[in-house]
Amino acid sequence: MSASRSPDISLRPDETIDGLMNGRLRLIQSRHGYRFSIDAIFLSDFVTVREEDVVVDLGTGCGIMPLMLLTKRAIKLAFGLEIQEELATQAARNARLNGFEARMKVVMGDLKRLPFHEGSADVVICNPPYGKIASGRVNPDLRRAIARHEILASLDDILSAASRMLRPKGRFATIYPCARLADIFCRLGRFNLEAKRLRIIYPTLQSRAKLALIAACPGGRRGLAIEPPLVGQGDDAFLSPA
Amino acid sequence: MSASRSPDISLRPDETIDGLMNGRLRLIQSRHGYRFSIDAIFLSDFVTVREEDVVVDLGTGCGIMPLMLLTKRAIKLAFGLEIQEELATQAARNARLNGFEARMKVVMGDLKRLPFHEGSADVVICNPPYGKIASGRVNPDLRRAIARHEILASLDDILSAASRMLRPKGRFATIYPCARLADIFCRLGRFNLEAKRLRIIYPTLQSRAKLALIAACPGGRRGLAIEPPLVGQGDDAFLSPA
Repeated sequence: MSASRSPDISLRPDETIDGLMNGRLRLIQSRHGYRFSIDAIFLSDFVTVREEDVVVDLGTGCGIMPLMLLTKRAIKLAFGLEIQEELATQAARNARLNGFEARMKVVMGDLKRLPFHEGSADVVICNPPYGKIASGRVNPDLRRAIARHEILASLDDILSAASRMLRPKGRFATIYPCARLADIFCRLGRFNLEAKRLRIIYPTLQSRAKLALIAACPGGRRGLAIEPPLVGQGDDAFLSPA
Repeated sequence: MSASRSPDISLRPDETIDGLMNGRLRLIQSRHGYRFSIDAIFLSDFVTVREEDVVVDLGTGCGIMPLMLLTKRAIKLAFGLEIQEELATQAARNARLNGFEARMKVVMGDLKRLPFHEGSADVVICNPPYGKIASGRVNPDLRRAIARHEILASLDDILSAASRMLRPKGRFATIYPCARLADIFCRLGRFNLEAKRLRIIYPTLQSRAKLALIAACPGGRRGLAIEPPLVGQGDDAFLSPA
């Protein structure tokens, strides 16, 4: 796919530009390192956002979720926090490539030492590393490994960051493996986050679910809504974001 | 429906006998008081049982779940614990009516003072009262109210009883409102029960789920399997057990 390559959106040798949403969104990604997954699409479709919302994405990678929220849905401002310099610069170039430099800010930093004011976010989203350290084989590509395993941030680090960043009536949304659903429900409570919405992703109507979308809010009344199932046509259907 | 009325299966004036499973199971129920719900069918289909299992049903009502397990699925022995005398005698008559007097024992008692040895059950099942006290209107019929509200047993009482009764590799299964799913997941852990299977019941593919089937086991490795969705054709389909 062709792309305008202005000086400040320089494409590196190992990078590609992919078109998404019928070309409305263009995305620089590494050819071999971290690439966004369909989870990011699910999560950016799932989260409740409003026009005046300030959204923070913890571990934004190439910036896919802020970009999708700005392109498809009306929000005021998106911050993408990313600890890995290479990905942070990629996300910043993606913001410029899509004309969002005024409404999407990429911040290089660690969610364990939040570079934001507490209570400043309407919405916090996170597509977290799924694997516990020492579970599964750690990906030999360190960038992918950090995105997929709890090397730099544990689930508790993420929930703690979300809890501190959110304003009182804010919302937190994440996508998480079903195998650890009981675990995340209990941990949410420890950080004063109450699970409010759950949407389960079933590859087919006959298969076990692997991932669940979860929305929580600080404190608040108890009561979880399990939304209609999200059903694919098999694993393959979920692999091509189209 | 006609029924043999031997002297020890006397039908009371306010009772009916209904046929279930194409007449393989006959069930005495009160005409106006507590009647079993479709939840009991879902739960007795959901729980994993083996031929040599001793199963305990906490709050057995008219005995529907032990009866279904003995009729449809091979288990060794079923105990139905019931605190309400009228229902306990009804369950005992249902055991005799269906020829299960040797394999189904009805015990009148309170799950807060378990009349069983600890660690004696392979499987504990419970179709618990859903409503928290003071939530919703309490049913004016006290028998129904006890079955539906946490008047005599709280969720913690039930989980504590299950935890004490189960042998180390035993299984606990229950059905619970989705609105309280996060709550039950956290409480399971406090009683050393680990959620292992979750099956969500959706009235239709487009609707929110109201109930979930949950299986847990004592201690053990973490890891929850979310099984394929159970989807009806609307609420009505779930109301006629056929």
